Amino acid sequence: MSATILILNGPNLNLLGRREPALYGRETLEDIAAACRARGETLGFAIDFRQSNLEGELVEWIQATHTDVRGIILNAAAYTHTSVAIPDALRAVGLPVIEVHLSNVFAREPFRHHSYVSPVAAGVIAGLGGQGYVLALDAMARLVETEAARTSDPQT
Amino acid sequence: MSATILILNGPNLNLLGRREPALYGRETLEDIAAACRARGETLGFAIDFRQSNLEGELVEWIQATHTDVRGIILNAAAYTHTSVAIPDALRAVGLPVIEVHLSNVFAREPFRHHSYVSPVAAGVIAGLGGQGYVLALDAMARLVETEAARTSDPQT
Amino acid sequence: MSATILILNGPNLNLLGRREPALYGRETLEDIAAACRARGETLGFAIDFRQSNLEGELVEWIQATHTDVRGIILNAAAYTHTSVAIPDALRAVGLPVIEVHLSNVFAREPFRHHSYVSPVAAGVIAGLGGQGYVLALDAMARLVETEAARTSDPQT
Amino acid sequence: MSATILILNGPNLNLLGRREPALYGRETLEDIAAACRARGETLGFAIDFRQSNLEGELVEWIQATHTDVRGIILNAAAYTHTSVAIPDALRAVGLPVIEVHLSNVFAREPFRHHSYVSPVAAGVIAGLGGQGYVLALDAMARLVETEAARTSDPQT
Amino acid sequence: MSATILILNGPNLNLLGRREPALYGRETLEDIAAACRARGETLGFAIDFRQSNLEGELVEWIQATHTDVRGIILNAAAYTHTSVAIPDALRAVGLPVIEVHLSNVFAREPFRHHSYVSPVAAGVIAGLGGQGYVLALDAMARLVETEAARTSDPQT
Amino acid sequence: MSATILILNGPNLNLLGRREPALYGRETLEDIAAACRARGETLGFAIDFRQSNLEGELVEWIQATHTDVRGIILNAAAYTHTSVAIPDALRAVGLPVIEVHLSNVFAREPFRHHSYVSPVAAGVIAGLGGQGYVLALDAMARLVETEAARTSDPQT
Amino acid sequence: MSATILILNGPNLNLLGRREPALYGRETLEDIAAACRARGETLGFAIDFRQSNLEGELVEWIQATHTDVRGIILNAAAYTHTSVAIPDALRAVGLPVIEVHLSNVFAREPFRHHSYVSPVAAGVIAGLGGQGYVLALDAMARLVETEAARTSDPQT
Amino acid sequence: MSATILILNGPNLNLLGRREPALYGRETLEDIAAACRARGETLGFAIDFRQSNLEGELVEWIQATHTDVRGIILNAAAYTHTSVAIPDALRAVGLPVIEVHLSNVFAREPFRHHSYVSPVAAGVIAGLGGQGYVLALDAMARLVETEAARTSDPQT
Amino acid sequence: MSATILILNGPNLNLLGRREPALYGRETLEDIAAACRARGETLGFAIDFRQSNLEGELVEWIQATHTDVRGIILNAAAYTHTSVAIPDALRAVGLPVIEVHLSNVFAREPFRHHSYVSPVAAGVIAGLGGQGYVLALDAMARLVETEAARTSDPQT
Amino acid sequence: MSATILILNGPNLNLLGRREPALYGRETLEDIAAACRARGETLGFAIDFRQSNLEGELVEWIQATHTDVRGIILNAAAYTHTSVAIPDALRAVGLPVIEVHLSNVFAREPFRHHSYVSPVAAGVIAGLGGQGYVLALDAMARLVETEAARTSDPQT
Amino acid sequence: MSATILILNGPNLNLLGRREPALYGRETLEDIAAACRARGETLGFAIDFRQSNLEGELVEWIQATHTDVRGIILNAAAYTHTSVAIPDALRAVGLPVIEVHLSNVFAREPFRHHSYVSPVAAGVIAGLGGQGYVLALDAMARLVETEAARTSDPQT
Amino acid sequence: MSATILILNGPNLNLLGRREPALYGRETLEDIAAACRARGETLGFAIDFRQSNLEGELVEWIQATHTDVRGIILNAAAYTHTSVAIPDALRAVGLPVIEVHLSNVFAREPFRHHSYVSPVAAGVIAGLGGQGYVLALDAMARLVETEAARTSDPQT
Repeated sequence: MSATILILNGPNLNLLGRREPALYGRETLEDIAAACRARGETLGFAIDFRQSNLEGELVEWIQATHTDVRGIILNAAAYTHTSVAIPDALRAVGLPVIEVHLSNVFAREPFRHHSYVSPVAAGVIAGLGGQGYVLALDAMARLVETEAARTSDPQT
Repeated sequence: MSATILILNGPNLNLLGRREPALYGRETLEDIAAACRARGETLGFAIDFRQSNLEGELVEWIQATHTDVRGIILNAAAYTHTSVAIPDALRAVGLPVIEVHLSNVFAREPFRHHSYVSPVAAGVIAGLGGQGYVLALDAMARLVETEAARTSDPQT
Repeated sequence: MSATILILNGPNLNLLGRREPALYGRETLEDIAAACRARGETLGFAIDFRQSNLEGELVEWIQATHTDVRGIILNAAAYTHTSVAIPDALRAVGLPVIEVHLSNVFAREPFRHHSYVSPVAAGVIAGLGGQGYVLALDAMARLVETEAARTSDPQT
Repeated sequence: MSATILILNGPNLNLLGRREPALYGRETLEDIAAACRARGETLGFAIDFRQSNLEGELVEWIQATHTDVRGIILNAAAYTHTSVAIPDALRAVGLPVIEVHLSNVFAREPFRHHSYVSPVAAGVIAGLGGQGYVLALDAMARLVETEAARTSDPQT
Repeated sequence: MSATILILNGPNLNLLGRREPALYGRETLEDIAAACRARGETLGFAIDFRQSNLEGELVEWIQATHTDVRGIILNAAAYTHTSVAIPDALRAVGLPVIEVHLSNVFAREPFRHHSYVSPVAAGVIAGLGGQGYVLALDAMARLVETEAARTSDPQT
Repeated sequence: MSATILILNGPNLNLLGRREPALYGRETLEDIAAACRARGETLGFAIDFRQSNLEGELVEWIQATHTDVRGIILNAAAYTHTSVAIPDALRAVGLPVIEVHLSNVFAREPFRHHSYVSPVAAGVIAGLGGQGYVLALDAMARLVETEAARTSDPQT
Repeated sequence: MSATILILNGPNLNLLGRREPALYGRETLEDIAAACRARGETLGFAIDFRQSNLEGELVEWIQATHTDVRGIILNAAAYTHTSVAIPDALRAVGLPVIEVHLSNVFAREPFRHHSYVSPVAAGVIAGLGGQGYVLALDAMARLVETEAARTSDPQT
Repeated sequence: MSATILILNGPNLNLLGRREPALYGRETLEDIAAACRARGETLGFAIDFRQSNLEGELVEWIQATHTDVRGIILNAAAYTHTSVAIPDALRAVGLPVIEVHLSNVFAREPFRHHSYVSPVAAGVIAGLGGQGYVLALDAMARLVETEAARTSDPQT
Repeated sequence: MSATILILNGPNLNLLGRREPALYGRETLEDIAAACRARGETLGFAIDFRQSNLEGELVEWIQATHTDVRGIILNAAAYTHTSVAIPDALRAVGLPVIEVHLSNVFAREPFRHHSYVSPVAAGVIAGLGGQGYVLALDAMARLVETEAARTSDPQT
Repeated sequence: MSATILILNGPNLNLLGRREPALYGRETLEDIAAACRARGETLGFAIDFRQSNLEGELVEWIQATHTDVRGIILNAAAYTHTSVAIPDALRAVGLPVIEVHLSNVFAREPFRHHSYVSPVAAGVIAGLGGQGYVLALDAMARLVETEAARTSDPQT
Repeated sequence: MSATILILNGPNLNLLGRREPALYGRETLEDIAAACRARGETLGFAIDFRQSNLEGELVEWIQATHTDVRGIILNAAAYTHTSVAIPDALRAVGLPVIEVHLSNVFAREPFRHHSYVSPVAAGVIAGLGGQGYVLALDAMARLVETEAARTSDPQT
Repeated sequence: MSATILILNGPNLNLLGRREPALYGRETLEDIAAACRARGETLGFAIDFRQSNLEGELVEWIQATHTDVRGIILNAAAYTHTSVAIPDALRAVGLPVIEVHLSNVFAREPFRHHSYVSPVAAGVIAGLGGQGYVLALDAMARLVETEAARTSDPQT
């Protein structure tokens, strides 16, 4: 199997584009998945794109990353602010993580300013809609490359 | 299908009447469901009454409200204080919500004084036991009526 | 004199229906009093319905509850958040209390989320407008009945 | 069926011994289960040892404790710090509880210093690795014995 | 009756000039009233100048503003920091409000730095003694004028 | 008129001895007044003993202290924790003040641990029931004496 | 041996009257001891009056209260704000406690407003200088009497 | 040179009237300067009116006040909430200061409720637009006069 | 002049690549500017790339944006956490803003978790090094396009 | 001398079994010492078991650990929450530490939830009474063994 | 006896140079005492250099300063952060105090950033190791000299 | 060029000795510079002594340290409490830093107790006036020497 990026989406993101378009726009999660797959192809990565409304299922998907997975892009949505189990899983698998949010969470209610995920992420992208996922893929490609270089370097 | 009110119950409410009667009384969740169905009949609403111990399942039941659902009565129990995913789902479906608690949460531990659900609810009823559900149905009938009037009013 | 429910209203509620209808609706306090008296008749209770803008007068009305008063329904309005004297009076008279708010205080400014009254109330109803008073009467009737049963029970 | 101790493990503990050995050691959850079963045999208890990544599933396992279960040993892992539903379930079933953590949570990030479980637990053991479970079993045996003595004592 | 500015003074301001001259100066409240009436005459406003030590009386005076009152200048004194009822009354009557304090409250005890009145006021003047009232009248005259212009403007 | 000590009692103290005897004992406010008058006679002071449920009335009684009043003993009850107007009045009249509480407020709810009155009081007596008033009189007699000595001393 | 009141003084109180007379007056600790012994004689109690600068020594003196000790009057001075060991000792011996402070601690630095001792004390007297000890003795005599009455009452 | 009032304006005030007219109105800083100069002439003061976007330049202008400057009117804008250097400079030069804000900062974001400048100001005027500067000039004229009287009084 | 994106860099970013390479990498600010210019050319935007160590100079560069500037990419570095003047300037000019940080500020000291800039930014990119600027340019191109579409749309 | 475990007990623990049996049980400190010595014998360790009411004496006993001491079991009691000197001493001597509490401190007053000792302890055992000491000895035996293995391993 | 500087050292400082050299260096407390005595000789002061692990003993040494002591240099170590008794003793004796810390406490755990001693000290020296004591002596010599000049000056 | 110590002074320090002598004394900044140069000569260091009122200029002077600079002594004055840019610059250049304050900032307003500079400083000297700079030079000489020894040691 080829090198893969796992893209995980948390609760309510399956409603994207169908509810509250004023806040989240008209793009659906399928649209975003398609854009990610297209970019993945350009970058030479398979894309494993999933959504779950269950904290525990997200934990299990992170745990189940097989050896071809090179990095995780995560929009944990509401669980960003309430889940310790998800970042604990990320910490355990040790892959590079980029945290994505569709809206600018830092300009919303105060409880959305804090993320349990950020301390285990390499980077954060917020407020750039579905495009944020594609930008995260670009960044992940570079992270994976650097990681590969570092690992294959006999001197480090 | 006829106009429906969805009544959702969170974790541990399935134990109602069987555990801690000193705190929660002897009424079971089935007793409350029966009282709600009786009142629903009087008010002209079908009642869809459910309980789950999983945050994600409650999220999915909220997302899955079909077009006949006119309002949601929610006793999120413990998730009231810890879940952002549930109010995010409520915000997304945009139906009128009434929050119910069996006990007076404001007279219990401080962490039970804060509810993530309240800001998306039209109203809150706490401390009135199973009767609180029936009162919430009365209030929901009025909310739905007002909403219907507003929507069918060509001038607004 | 017959069994009575005392319904107390705090500061600025006399303006109801005449000011800020966008926030509080067009129903006047007299409309609510009338609805309460009608429901009281059905439930077999006299209704003693009052409003004051003075914290101390509310304290004195609570203190002066005569022996026919079976319970107190209280919308302390602004004093909910700033008065310790009112809940101290309620604690002293020892009657069942239901706290009512016209608007959903939990969705307004943070200082309105805290109530000194709640810890001495049996239950809380908020955000359901004038109907909230009538629902509180329904709940009070049940509380009074339970209380009466408990008191006349020679075994407790 | 014989007297049983239910041992519950929360999210990510299934990874034990395979991930982050520097922090959690090389012992797997199966190793701990085996040690517990061995000690259980010595102490005269059957051991029901489980792990779940879902908060709701842990709630349900607690609710489903059958009449042979004498006590619960719980390592709620990440849910220790974020779940109100789990301690609510423990409170409802009313069995003695011992809280266990593999690492010394009080020497880690501040958010790990607070446990929603502790107020419903008889005792807490942290930082002693897999051995902590076995020590908890020793303590539980004593608690169950005391409880049994107390219940069978006609004078209390 | 002619256009009127209501000037309200809270608790202990009746002592002005007779107690604590080191902090509040030797000017009495009557001196300030006289200065306000003189400036009111120049500006073309009648001045209704009052003082009360009762929170509820201040609430009632605000409620009772007749149709000739164009604005309220309020020195709520101690109630600035403890009353929600007074700003609720101001919010209800919807007239322009200027908040005045004789001393510079921001340079005194921390509990005097917070005002419940400020969020409903157009402006705040503090620390300028009795002259602050006269300056507030100047400012109110301009506010009333702007308001009048805005209301009579058929295009807004 | 002879030298007088003003003893002021805040809200709900008129209920003393008739409500909540478990918390406040069976002594009535009249009993305490009688004990104070008796001790006043011994100490050579007239006693002016009053109770009010209105914050503003307490403010006015403090303001109205005539020239024979030598000191104020104040049990502001609930207003201890919520009133800035009362200590502002005390500060203005500049007489020695002793703060009294029947119960030990420091062993009750946290909001009763803070007093706005304490910073303007010479001393505080709490938790010693009605006897606390008599002890406060003893202390006030000494304070007044010291004050008198200081004032008549031509060298200070 | 006769009925005894133990009066304990914490750190730096041995300097009383010799240092900082502007804050604490010119009375020495020996003067206070003498006044206490005089009053004790009147009240029929032996007085055991001690001072220590060591937290642990105060703990040990509390622990060592022999059977003739009827109550403890404690001015823990600086340890009031920093010692948990002293109130733990008081809690263990279970005698009535009155907390005394020479100065009005509630009008000084914020860290002096909190006392670990208060929750285990029957009452608190602050700001009344050495006289506060004598008043505490008066109050203790009454407490001891009530306690004795309660204990010898066969019906409680 | 004649008696002068220094009027200092902080960052972004140069944009006044050209940006965000909904919040700050259409008046430009030049308009305000002109109004101040006109009033200065009436009051007998030269006006030195400046604006800077650099915290350090504001500090230096305050330091450089020559002997003809009698007082400083300061709208520190954003630096009000973040600069300690500016109030330190004001404290050093020791001239009377009046703090001005165009908008009512107390009704905006919480971080705008705190001012480092207020403790060194004689008074504060907020929310009265450009007119606030002119009112501040009126108040400063009185302050300067009082100061002059005080300084030339041989008895103080 | 052609459509331009202004890219502003705050204090110490001029040291990039020469100091603390372990934390910030070996890329210099000039390298990033070159990468931005290259991407700008692809996207059809001129790039105006600047760095300043002075808060006030950053404020002035924001104010001075000429009519060809379509958006601002801002790495305010240390001023992110301490400057209100910079976001006030951004709010005034009203252009779309993307906030960039080289390191993942959310995984560093707590004072770096709060940004005054975020509430006025459309989006935030952190932790992705110099590549973050290029991704921000991609995102800005899309924002500008949307903005242009919205403005030229006669129906909105 | 043989390998030794030092077991230290803080203030008031000498009262164990004689005071407050409802909270701490009837077991005395001597009973616990005996149980520890018995288990020590089994495990091959001498037990040095001490109690002090003085913070400084506990500090000195920690400092004085001779070369045969392999680990410290510490129940610092009240000093757990107030002493920095004790953990500083533990940090200095660098031996493995296990913290023990008889009661479940996490279910008591909030000030007992924080321990200065925990960050320097390998593990924590709370709420398991005297048995907790014996369990701590079991755990210490394992820690010492691991430590010994690590130290004698020429490869680390 | 000659003019003396008292140098006091708190808990665990007797371990200096023997434990944790990575943090505190290899210099022993005796080395520091010798350096202080040498400098004292140069400066014309006798040095009284002591260390105690008991808070109360430090209090007593401060109280016992005889008339030849001109100043106190204090490294209270752990008691810096937890003792109110030590600064109370310093306040009582009224001598100039310089606070010294070997390590830079402001760069360590947050609880070490707060000192109860600082408000009564003339100055603070931290992070400069044993040399900090010698520098404190230099500074003390100057303080003593200034004090002496001030006291012998007949005009102040 | 010879080995140099850079001594930087922040805002308002240029006023030293001319303003607020009661707080800061009569010594001017030039006096301090002269004392530093004299001591520098003794110690074998050139002294580069500067003052700026601009945060950004201080940042640039830190950045511009040439290769002869061996250490930085910094009195950032007001910027100590508000600047992140200055410590970021210090962190970047990596030279030893000693933080100096003329007054004892820990005994002044609470906002002066926190320093952003301290965590990057080797040591802190406060409250010792201009002498503090000279003591800092003595300490810096020792730090530089140690650093030099460490760097030239081939074994580290």
